[in-house]
Amino acid sequence: MNSSWLRLAGAALIVLAAPLQAQSDPLPSWNDKAAKKAIVEFVKATTTAGNPKFVPVPERIATFDQDGTLWVEHPLYSQVMYILERVPAVVKAKPELANTEPFKTVLSGDRAAMAKLTDRDLEILAVATLTGMSVEQFQSEVSKWMAAARDPRWKKPYNELTYLPMQEVLAYLRANGYKTYIVTGGGQDFVRVYAEKTYGIPPEQVVGTATGTSYSYGKDGKPVLTKDPKLVLNDNNAGKAEGIHLMIGRRPHIAFGNTAGDQQMLEYTAGGDGTRLSLLVLHDDAKREYAYGPAKGLPDTKVGAFSQALYDEAKKDGWVIISMKDDWKRIFAFEK
Amino acid sequence: MNSSWLRLAGAALIVLAAPLQAQSDPLPSWNDKAAKKAIVEFVKATTTAGNPKFVPVPERIATFDQDGTLWVEHPLYSQVMYILERVPAVVKAKPELANTEPFKTVLSGDRAAMAKLTDRDLEILAVATLTGMSVEQFQSEVSKWMAAARDPRWKKPYNELTYLPMQEVLAYLRANGYKTYIVTGGGQDFVRVYAEKTYGIPPEQVVGTATGTSYSYGKDGKPVLTKDPKLVLNDNNAGKAEGIHLMIGRRPHIAFGNTAGDQQMLEYTAGGDGTRLSLLVLHDDAKREYAYGPAKGLPDTKVGAFSQALYDEAKKDGWVIISMKDDWKRIFAFEK
Repeated sequence: MNSSWLRLAGAALIVLAAPLQAQSDPLPSWNDKAAKKAIVEFVKATTTAGNPKFVPVPERIATFDQDGTLWVEHPLYSQVMYILERVPAVVKAKPELANTEPFKTVLSGDRAAMAKLTDRDLEILAVATLTGMSVEQFQSEVSKWMAAARDPRWKKPYNELTYLPMQEVLAYLRANGYKTYIVTGGGQDFVRVYAEKTYGIPPEQVVGTATGTSYSYGKDGKPVLTKDPKLVLNDNNAGKAEGIHLMIGRRPHIAFGNTAGDQQMLEYTAGGDGTRLSLLVLHDDAKREYAYGPAKGLPDTKVGAFSQALYDEAKKDGWVIISMKDDWKRIFAFEK
Repeated sequence: MNSSWLRLAGAALIVLAAPLQAQSDPLPSWNDKAAKKAIVEFVKATTTAGNPKFVPVPERIATFDQDGTLWVEHPLYSQVMYILERVPAVVKAKPELANTEPFKTVLSGDRAAMAKLTDRDLEILAVATLTGMSVEQFQSEVSKWMAAARDPRWKKPYNELTYLPMQEVLAYLRANGYKTYIVTGGGQDFVRVYAEKTYGIPPEQVVGTATGTSYSYGKDGKPVLTKDPKLVLNDNNAGKAEGIHLMIGRRPHIAFGNTAGDQQMLEYTAGGDGTRLSLLVLHDDAKREYAYGPAKGLPDTKVGAFSQALYDEAKKDGWVIISMKDDWKRIFAFEK
């Protein structure tokens, strides 16, 4: 074979390789920058037999915070929207609540007054809307709400406000033998209702803030589990690491978060033996989504913020920062 | 082809069919009686597309009590053996305990005195042996103990005292798309240490009595989860149904138990919509294993008994009773 044949063959290979490579890109909505590289390298290293960073299939556990990591959390967590929007139905069933706080304020629709509701007020509303019914009744109510509710900015159902790049990461990890878990400060029972349809994550792989249930018998003699106000797991901060041990019993090899509430989950993941990777989503895209937390020049906010201290810890400990602005080509599937 | 050829072919088919059928029997250690038939019919009906009893794969949840259902629970639960056998090491680390009760009684080795230990005594011993260390230390101690400990009757490691017919059921259900869970009154962290090796059940599919953990930082700055005495889930009686909701979030389609502590799990399973099956293992084989509970002519005992009332409920509600004596050809893999 002479040299021109070799050159021709080389050119043909290049032509062939380009579309093949594009086709096999598992993260097409990500720009080819450090965050994408870190994820792809982690997956390749931990799934290649013989690689010193190899992780056996049963130990491939991946955990994801939900609000602000898998979908939009501004201006309010979707569960808080649910709680507020359920108040009229609760008051209809118990009319005596109409003139008592905090129900009265919520019914007034006065946004300025509602913004002043205290944590204790929200707890009262949560107990009234999330407990006191059977688990099946609750599931049915949340399903109906999710189908009808619309985000105030995009006017879309909440499950369309998931981040496309993160959906790609979920699918990519699963295709490589990882079990994907949601580990959320939100209600475990709430998120379980839609997690399978929204993220392909079954109920048993959703760890969240959980209240107990009480076993009793209905009028037909059949067992009923009624949702109780008693807190079993506060799945925030240290509770995320504790909740992972309680519900999964293995330490994740890769974890994604975005706020101070995820700090301990990310530390716990990064602190394990062998190959581990912790990643933080930075909300720095005021145009396509929101900018808050330590994004330059933006005030820290109560919802979804991670502090400068957490940002510094991430940098110091080699966690990967995901910039929504720089790392994500597209944020939502509905974008063109 | 003449009739003798046909006869010859027929005979050959019969000869061939016998071993093929034997080979494809998923439950070879079971006698061909009602219990085996009920299990096989349940699996066939729930996994055959188009069958009115079909259950989609994601909903195929099977739950198993452990002690007395998957392995021997007499004369003491293996976890109680662990607690008692850990006492010398605990006293070695804290010599001041040697002269305080109940440690003194356990150290004496006086079986008659040990049999009189109260529930409160056992709780003190459990807190001393199961909590106060990191989850990794605990896992390492239980692993070492399981490798060395021997059952007092058969002188075998506990993981060889699993019931072969139930191991066959676990494998059969998994081969048909069922996720198999242990739902045990025993310690969740304890059972998780050996469940994967012993039953092929990963830690995240073990639901058990659980105490909390506390997140802190070690001297090297790395996160540590320390086992706490605080009870998070008492996975007995109503706690089994509540624990299933907490940890799995779906109602089982098939459940196996053997004692009053499993009553609510079996009721909860049987009470669901669609195809459900609840089964009770009856310990009625004094020769090959033990006979207790409502087995005819035998006294009820504290450990592992199910009452006549539960037996009657099972009969009334169509649960399947598995007689160890009549339904199981072999009980242990080590039997000839």
